[in-house]
Amino acid sequence: MDVNFINPFIASTVSAFSSMLDCRLERQEMFLSDNFQPQHDLTAIIGLSGEIIGTVVLSLEREVAISATEALLGERPSSIDADVVDATGELSNIVAGGAKAQMSQYELSLALPTVIVGRSHVVTFESDVRPICIPFKCDWGNLTLEVGFTSGRD
Amino acid sequence: MDVNFINPFIASTVSAFSSMLDCRLERQEMFLSDNFQPQHDLTAIIGLSGEIIGTVVLSLEREVAISATEALLGERPSSIDADVVDATGELSNIVAGGAKAQMSQYELSLALPTVIVGRSHVVTFESDVRPICIPFKCDWGNLTLEVGFTSGRD
Repeated sequence: MDVNFINPFIASTVSAFSSMLDCRLERQEMFLSDNFQPQHDLTAIIGLSGEIIGTVVLSLEREVAISATEALLGERPSSIDADVVDATGELSNIVAGGAKAQMSQYELSLALPTVIVGRSHVVTFESDVRPICIPFKCDWGNLTLEVGFTSGRD
Repeated sequence: MDVNFINPFIASTVSAFSSMLDCRLERQEMFLSDNFQPQHDLTAIIGLSGEIIGTVVLSLEREVAISATEALLGERPSSIDADVVDATGELSNIVAGGAKAQMSQYELSLALPTVIVGRSHVVTFESDVRPICIPFKCDWGNLTLEVGFTSGRD
């Protein structure tokens, strides 16, 4: 996977958290995911397809997801409810949409996000795809962005 | 969501298990997913986008995933390893690809599958999408197919 694919997604994540949630992200060292590492409590997954095909995985610690929902809706959810799931899915949609706008040459279109809820779940790509993982920290806690792309096969 | 969207996915799932795995699926009653029901041990997720956008979720009990991998590779994995993950992702790819071929009017393209591994994880769609869930039984155990679509928004 071309490491340049990752930059629009990093920029889009930082920009979405800053402009929509007033939350400053501090980026950590990126690494190639070994494909069997546990995610945080809520993980949004959204597919992209076009001249290249890929999937974006945005995983949030519980406190990050709840605080992000509070920032969006003005009210703090007391637990992981439908609002938190929707906010997490919508964040992934905005991150992917922002990146897509910077990658117009690939004519990407977005699929529908799904959100995984559950402790210690693992999200894996097919073994021929080595996704790139970027951890971030913010005042609310930790999140990670994972992006895997391969050349189109449709 | 138009219930007719589901039929190509059901046909494609039954056909893939029959032709590739020599495994006869018995279809159970379909229902509208309430979005917070736990999945089986391995869940493949694959996005589709085109004139409509959606996501397909194929969730397999551990024994179904291991036996399917054995049927594909000729050797039985002793645990949930990269082969089992790849086989599960590839099954979702074949199911989605088969359905796409029957829905050419929507010009769908497939994203990259991801596979969730973990007990009692929950896969949710955004709350404005009510996915349709179809449980199946086979000699190896239980699996479910879940399909959510909405009109395109790209």
